[in-house]
Amino acid sequence: MPEFRVRFLPDEQEVVVDGSTTLLEAARQANVYTGGICAGEGICGKCRIIVRQGEVEGESTDFLTRDEIRHGYVLACKVVPKSDVLIEVPPESRLGGYEGLGRDDEQFRDFAGRAAQPPAVEIAPLVEKFALQLAPPTLDDPTADQERVLEAIGKRRPGPMQMGLKIARELPFALRRRVVGRSAWNWHWDGRATATIGLRGDLNEVLCIEPGDTSGRNLGLALDLGTTTIVAHLVDLATGTTHDAAAKYNSQIKFGGDVISRINSARQPGGAEALHQAVIRDIDTLIEDLANRAHIARGDISCVVAAGNTAMMHFLLGLEADLIRISPFVPVATSPPPFRAAEIGLRINPRGILYTLPMAGSYVGGDITAGVLASGMHRSEELALLLDIGTNGEVVLGNRDFLVACSASAGPAFEGGSISCGMRATAGAIDSVRIRPRDLTISTTTIDNCPPVGLCGTGLIDTIAEMLLAGLVDRSGQFRTDRVTWRFRLADYDHRSQFILVAAEASGRGRDIVLTESDVENLIRTKGAIYAAADSLVQSIGLCFADVQKVYIAGAFGNRMDIAHCIAIGLLPDVPVERVEFIGNSSLAGAKLVMLSRRMFEEIHQIRDRITYRELMVDPNYMEQFTSACFLPHTDLARFPSVARQHAMR
Amino acid sequence: MPEFRVRFLPDEQEVVVDGSTTLLEAARQANVYTGGICAGEGICGKCRIIVRQGEVEGESTDFLTRDEIRHGYVLACKVVPKSDVLIEVPPESRLGGYEGLGRDDEQFRDFAGRAAQPPAVEIAPLVEKFALQLAPPTLDDPTADQERVLEAIGKRRPGPMQMGLKIARELPFALRRRVVGRSAWNWHWDGRATATIGLRGDLNEVLCIEPGDTSGRNLGLALDLGTTTIVAHLVDLATGTTHDAAAKYNSQIKFGGDVISRINSARQPGGAEALHQAVIRDIDTLIEDLANRAHIARGDISCVVAAGNTAMMHFLLGLEADLIRISPFVPVATSPPPFRAAEIGLRINPRGILYTLPMAGSYVGGDITAGVLASGMHRSEELALLLDIGTNGEVVLGNRDFLVACSASAGPAFEGGSISCGMRATAGAIDSVRIRPRDLTISTTTIDNCPPVGLCGTGLIDTIAEMLLAGLVDRSGQFRTDRVTWRFRLADYDHRSQFILVAAEASGRGRDIVLTESDVENLIRTKGAIYAAADSLVQSIGLCFADVQKVYIAGAFGNRMDIAHCIAIGLLPDVPVERVEFIGNSSLAGAKLVMLSRRMFEEIHQIRDRITYRELMVDPNYMEQFTSACFLPHTDLARFPSVARQHAMR
Repeated sequence: MPEFRVRFLPDEQEVVVDGSTTLLEAARQANVYTGGICAGEGICGKCRIIVRQGEVEGESTDFLTRDEIRHGYVLACKVVPKSDVLIEVPPESRLGGYEGLGRDDEQFRDFAGRAAQPPAVEIAPLVEKFALQLAPPTLDDPTADQERVLEAIGKRRPGPMQMGLKIARELPFALRRRVVGRSAWNWHWDGRATATIGLRGDLNEVLCIEPGDTSGRNLGLALDLGTTTIVAHLVDLATGTTHDAAAKYNSQIKFGGDVISRINSARQPGGAEALHQAVIRDIDTLIEDLANRAHIARGDISCVVAAGNTAMMHFLLGLEADLIRISPFVPVATSPPPFRAAEIGLRINPRGILYTLPMAGSYVGGDITAGVLASGMHRSEELALLLDIGTNGEVVLGNRDFLVACSASAGPAFEGGSISCGMRATAGAIDSVRIRPRDLTISTTTIDNCPPVGLCGTGLIDTIAEMLLAGLVDRSGQFRTDRVTWRFRLADYDHRSQFILVAAEASGRGRDIVLTESDVENLIRTKGAIYAAADSLVQSIGLCFADVQKVYIAGAFGNRMDIAHCIAIGLLPDVPVERVEFIGNSSLAGAKLVMLSRRMFEEIHQIRDRITYRELMVDPNYMEQFTSACFLPHTDLARFPSVARQHAMR
Repeated sequence: MPEFRVRFLPDEQEVVVDGSTTLLEAARQANVYTGGICAGEGICGKCRIIVRQGEVEGESTDFLTRDEIRHGYVLACKVVPKSDVLIEVPPESRLGGYEGLGRDDEQFRDFAGRAAQPPAVEIAPLVEKFALQLAPPTLDDPTADQERVLEAIGKRRPGPMQMGLKIARELPFALRRRVVGRSAWNWHWDGRATATIGLRGDLNEVLCIEPGDTSGRNLGLALDLGTTTIVAHLVDLATGTTHDAAAKYNSQIKFGGDVISRINSARQPGGAEALHQAVIRDIDTLIEDLANRAHIARGDISCVVAAGNTAMMHFLLGLEADLIRISPFVPVATSPPPFRAAEIGLRINPRGILYTLPMAGSYVGGDITAGVLASGMHRSEELALLLDIGTNGEVVLGNRDFLVACSASAGPAFEGGSISCGMRATAGAIDSVRIRPRDLTISTTTIDNCPPVGLCGTGLIDTIAEMLLAGLVDRSGQFRTDRVTWRFRLADYDHRSQFILVAAEASGRGRDIVLTESDVENLIRTKGAIYAAADSLVQSIGLCFADVQKVYIAGAFGNRMDIAHCIAIGLLPDVPVERVEFIGNSSLAGAKLVMLSRRMFEEIHQIRDRITYRELMVDPNYMEQFTSACFLPHTDLARFPSVARQHAMR
């Protein structure tokens, strides 16, 4: 089979492939991100690329307009090269840079939320350093080095303690100087040393004994392994202070935008290892950045605490993830043991430990147990609801007496998937929209104030909520095309109406940024799934939303959300706005709490054990709730009295 | 510097060295054993070799007779080659073969003692295998693989349990079959698996999860790491049965016959690693032999339990041993952690664990705590004395209320060192001697009934005891040369008398086998050191030997000893013979008890903690006791009433 050179702009990457290789696969080989969230299944229509030179072959597709096809647009997953080709990845398909993230205060807050605050716990970190001053052995007390050290440590951190062979081997050299004489050496007792102690399961382990006092250098890395974004905070374990933060996109995105696509990718030969290595490399990059900026050695980092959904944790640890995908949805491990970070190739202190936060099931991961911990809902008398809104929507309901959780496959609408002009929340994404009902003037803001190229989740919610309030869509999601006044904002394409949010000339995309009725349908299904999940959970214990005294919204996404708009479209239940609290990246906040407090480590395991998981797939009530919720805001308007009042006033 | 070829007979090994390399070093490089126990310091006179061809240069020495020098005898440590040379290692310097050991029933008993008996404990081994039958996961019970397995194991072995990442990774494959279909695979639940569980510190660890039921294949290796001999028993961990035994000389002997010489060797560049590797290779050889004979895979051996003196344990584990040698005699570790045997290069199950028995100090090792455990003295109401007689003599006194121990540097007389015709207990060694007082007819037996080539420890004790009883030596150890009747048994050499035990023509050595007055002096110092150590210990708690209700003699050496003779020379106190019990290789017996019983593992640690070590070097009473004991049997004959009666009867 003939081979062709495929060159990608603007990254200037090149790769040689044969004529049966899709350009999506070629891009993956060239390590170029081309968008797309379905990992090449041809159902998301997001891997849009432009063929600048050369010929390709493949199916035409519904996802592209005739105009786009004329301009060379193809879907990367659908075409193969027929000659050497030059490909341009357009802005809306690019990954967008997060390099600056964490240095900029506002973004730092966005990605960190509560995680950026110093946690209100007594500092007793999972990995501690103690400076020791040991009395010299004598004939009356010839206690062995190991036992002498363990006794001294026991006074600082009581309980069973283990020490590996390698550490024992180093002891005589850590506690003494060897002075080389004429023909041999002599030993001189010093006795000043620093012990690094880590918690491993139910035991303490001596990770390191170093000569001198290095107790001031003890850092930990808190990680939030999101499906889309990986965020890391560098924390001083002695003080609890957060030194710095860094984030990057999860490079597993090229294997699929959601975890199910990635699990399918892992079924390919070498796929699981590629996914595993991708996340390891991402973390390594973040460690490199943080260590360089803080002028520290990687060896000063003595632990990593990682939170993430169950599939991400499986990819991180190299556990088989396939069983998460198929009924009855069984993870390999929900409470993976702490082990040396080096074992999976993370380059910190060679004896440093990786802790993963415990998961409640295949679809309620360590990010959620962390969220519960960070919110404190498990200790409160108040009934609270925690919503983590993403491709998967996780919901936890409870208080100090009980915790129930469920998960709904919400779909990628909030992350730009299945929305015609949808995109991730990167530069150029429209993140807020206001429509003046009087004259239908539209004002938008974009991330980084770039020319608008598409709609991210908050922009999508705003658009639909504002259209609803302006009477441009009805409660079933149909465009009110009968209303003459806004015809100038409508375009017709293949006999379906499109709402023009930004005209081509003002857009950074080179064409109109529009919203279609099918986009509204997708949004309704997404928000309906989350609402119905929360609703089923609340009903399952015989309560209703009015009983919920607190609603926590987790996720970076949450920060920019307009609560009233979320209620208006029926994503959130109609509770008083003051009951809703954005807690930001509570996955990271929980990881940091655990890292700094052994009590919190115990507590998060108790949370995990206390959570009862409800599988919505086997809950007949859920499908009914979901159907009722597929309306704006809901078929039963009585459930949304504040929205009903607005509709009535209009 | 010119280089010369050095060839060794009868091993037919050859090595090229320069003219500054001693033949001892050349032999070491050629992996040829040439005798010697002082590691080349020129003080033992045991590395006797014969130069058959070529020239050597070096000091003449007191250790060789003029006749021997004429026949080409040199000390390997004292000469360097001046040309290519052909060297013969004479029988008395050879290592002697132990290859058959363990297959022959009698030798097996000798080396094993109580260790060969099935131990009288409830079998609850350190490493256990359980066959599991797990219910399949369902939507109602989607418990993760790891948690499902841990729950099932917890029912069989309660308590905290940890599992490594590698095991977790294998779980889905151990519990299911993957059936490969047309384009992918499907999972089929099996649920039958075998868990291997090991004790690590205070935790249980899952070492292995295999598909199917392999619980019948679980073997352990009990090791006695002696300074001279390494003995291994292969034990079925499910039943406690000993399958087989094997033993070999410790190849560290080429670095010195006693531990102090070896620690000095370890100070040379690369020395410590060479000592470490030597013992690892020895154990590997034993494992290979045992596995081959038993037709098992090395992977079926899931644990090793090793007992030995503190220095040997340090060499085994690669711990710095130098501090054991110098005041205040501090080991690196007396309770080394259990760790993977693979970590030091032992090839058993890759996740199999090495346990080392806890030591009470630099000179009271795991062999002694094992001896206490095997004797049961720590549980008994009776006051007992445990003597482990070797180059180092260890003594433990106590009962269920207290345990005190000490150690005396006895010297190598019982192993053939510092005795003119001394040798180890190998083929041709005279191991028993009777002298008929009437006509001084001498009858001897030798090991393996070979022609006699020297005197081993028991032969030495017998000879001196019989000479004492026949009135040939006085109680100070002087030859009674005034007694005319035995002049025919005396030879004169350098104006000192030698007692001819076997004349040259009957000897396998090609010269007379003799005993000199200085040999008797050395024996007296050796036995005096041990007796004085025991005496000091008994006195230190305000008691005397009459209060001792039981005397346990540990060591393979003990089996052939004549108790009355030991009392006659004052090695053992004058207690009724029925109070003395040989317990054989109690180091191995203890190792095996621990391997088969977690209760015994706990108990040996309690024994270690209970033992109070008395450093004789700082005990002024000890030197006084030692001086008094340097007589036959003792300066104070009243302490040996049975011997006094014999002397009086004569």
